[in-house]
Amino acid sequence: MEAYLDNSATTRCLERVTDKMVEVMRADFGNPSSMHTKGVEAEKYIREAKAFFARNLKVQEKEIYFTSGGTESNNLALIGAAMANRRKGNHLITTSLEHASVFSPMKYLEGQGFRVTYLPADESGKIRTEDLKAAICEDTILVSVMYVNNETGAVQPVDETGKLLRESGRDILFHVDAIQAYGKYRIHPKREGIHLLSVSGHKIHGPKGSGLLYVDEKVKIQPILFGGEQQKGLRSGTENVPGIAGIAEAAAACYEDLDGKVERLYQLKERFVEGISRLPEAVVNGETGRGSAPHIVNVSFPGVRSEVLLHALEDKGVYVSAGSACSSNKPSPSHTLTAMGLSKERVESALRFSFCFETTQEEIDYCLQELSELLPVLRRYVRR
Amino acid sequence: MEAYLDNSATTRCLERVTDKMVEVMRADFGNPSSMHTKGVEAEKYIREAKAFFARNLKVQEKEIYFTSGGTESNNLALIGAAMANRRKGNHLITTSLEHASVFSPMKYLEGQGFRVTYLPADESGKIRTEDLKAAICEDTILVSVMYVNNETGAVQPVDETGKLLRESGRDILFHVDAIQAYGKYRIHPKREGIHLLSVSGHKIHGPKGSGLLYVDEKVKIQPILFGGEQQKGLRSGTENVPGIAGIAEAAAACYEDLDGKVERLYQLKERFVEGISRLPEAVVNGETGRGSAPHIVNVSFPGVRSEVLLHALEDKGVYVSAGSACSSNKPSPSHTLTAMGLSKERVESALRFSFCFETTQEEIDYCLQELSELLPVLRRYVRR
Repeated sequence: MEAYLDNSATTRCLERVTDKMVEVMRADFGNPSSMHTKGVEAEKYIREAKAFFARNLKVQEKEIYFTSGGTESNNLALIGAAMANRRKGNHLITTSLEHASVFSPMKYLEGQGFRVTYLPADESGKIRTEDLKAAICEDTILVSVMYVNNETGAVQPVDETGKLLRESGRDILFHVDAIQAYGKYRIHPKREGIHLLSVSGHKIHGPKGSGLLYVDEKVKIQPILFGGEQQKGLRSGTENVPGIAGIAEAAAACYEDLDGKVERLYQLKERFVEGISRLPEAVVNGETGRGSAPHIVNVSFPGVRSEVLLHALEDKGVYVSAGSACSSNKPSPSHTLTAMGLSKERVESALRFSFCFETTQEEIDYCLQELSELLPVLRRYVRR
Repeated sequence: MEAYLDNSATTRCLERVTDKMVEVMRADFGNPSSMHTKGVEAEKYIREAKAFFARNLKVQEKEIYFTSGGTESNNLALIGAAMANRRKGNHLITTSLEHASVFSPMKYLEGQGFRVTYLPADESGKIRTEDLKAAICEDTILVSVMYVNNETGAVQPVDETGKLLRESGRDILFHVDAIQAYGKYRIHPKREGIHLLSVSGHKIHGPKGSGLLYVDEKVKIQPILFGGEQQKGLRSGTENVPGIAGIAEAAAACYEDLDGKVERLYQLKERFVEGISRLPEAVVNGETGRGSAPHIVNVSFPGVRSEVLLHALEDKGVYVSAGSACSSNKPSPSHTLTAMGLSKERVESALRFSFCFETTQEEIDYCLQELSELLPVLRRYVRR
């Protein structure tokens, strides 16, 4: 038996997604910038994708831009907006829980003369809005807070942050990395006060190499890639039409019967957490209730190093990750778990289990069964 | 009948390419950064693709980086190398014939304090190495020259440029935009003195959203996208594994029996040029012999505006482009043809016909037939 429980690293493409992409690549392969019908036919997929995301996010079609993935979306949002607004101020705020694709652009911007405040986390892996409030100053031009943490599933106070920024009366842009949230939550940037929102295709059963960035029409932002002025000049380069058609198809699939699917995910998660609670010395990191994301559980197994258990599970066909496997494969202690104040032992024995709409109860039970058999053996072995 | 003669705008994906991509997206969908076998299986496609391109270009595997396309490759090469080497000098040289994805990053770099020399073109659409020689100065750190011009098919003196730079004894990087050349020419950067080489997938029957950059291991270069440190930190972001597998598959297909296929293309081109020469008032822009690229012909039809003829041909199922259709669809006078010193009338009546290995003699003949019928009608109509 196999249990792929690493869906926050990446997901399998849906058949309807690959079907759509093959149709584009083989039949409607034109360059959307071409003036003839082959171009128009290709552009139609882009327009349809934009129309879908505009409806889904309740924004305007012209506020949707397609990128090569979550990393590019985050880079474009942060570098593009910070550089375009630097005359207004040089202070940026983010959290100590962000993905590398937010954290590293912030480090780059520090090198460009910006000052960045990294908000601390509480033990549940969430920021405190008081800290955010205290960090805001005259010079603050942008706040970036992820929606769902990729390692723990903690849901950040995005609504409150948007409200707080709105009520501050200051002109501060709000960027949300929604890469782990999109497809599981209904996100409406206008209501939530979000000006920039990043989404990735391959986390929602869409293709790798696809992503999007919502940019509120009022946001001043400059490109980070220059060329043929596609996408109103904000993202040059021939559009990845099959990728764009693919991410839209995947998103459409996610939002069909969303509530039913999310309910099922929570039930799986509850079953999993309950099973974990019966294992000796296993401890869940962060929250697990309905206030946390339905598809991510982070568990420490003190006494067993993450990599050891990861590979032992792998031998049984259970695929999980240690920390955020989304970065390159050098294992390093999770900055998210460290920011939550967890002990070194808990950080170094943590595994992330992440589910998707296709995950079955059998997979959950199989994983729990294997854990209960492997852990005593590994603990005995390791402690000798 | 249909004749798709706009292959320099984009090409149809080969079936073996889409088959490969579907295999990756459905079966081997793992995240190459994951520590378990699903990650290893996905990474295998990246390693195989790197191995192919290393053999094909006669470079090292570690010198191959995958990007989201030609635009990103050119941006990374130019901005990444210029910024990383700015202490050595602030002068860059390119040509007045480049694609927007070279031209626009150069404009961006001017804004960052670099000085850029744009070499002029002769009437055949090529630069003169004397001009290049004269432009080089103490401060020159990088020269960027495209291999095959995307509008005229002119082949630039890449070999001589590499030799000249090598013999100058100066430490000058040589970037080549080979987006229209790769797949038609055998390119060996080490022999040709090329340090940075850009390739795009969708110009060679591969997927849109895929590209690569060869970076000589000795080149100092910095990333333009920041995040999870994939690809040795030069290109963060989960690798587009299906796209990478796809571009490698497409390239492999191109180089199978390359000489035979290129010979066939030249024969088609000669047939086409000969047919054009029989049309009254049609004039080929630039060279057409074996010294020019086998797949591109640029023709002016004085008295008939490009767009008018383009749409008239489109009605007959013949797809071509006006200028470089690769930029966004605002028609503007071709800077390449203008740089060649062509009259306004010739520039405004120019069409690009571009072939691929699948183009047939029937398509060529059909296009010529339609041209011979349409032109007298359009000329009569326009002149009234």
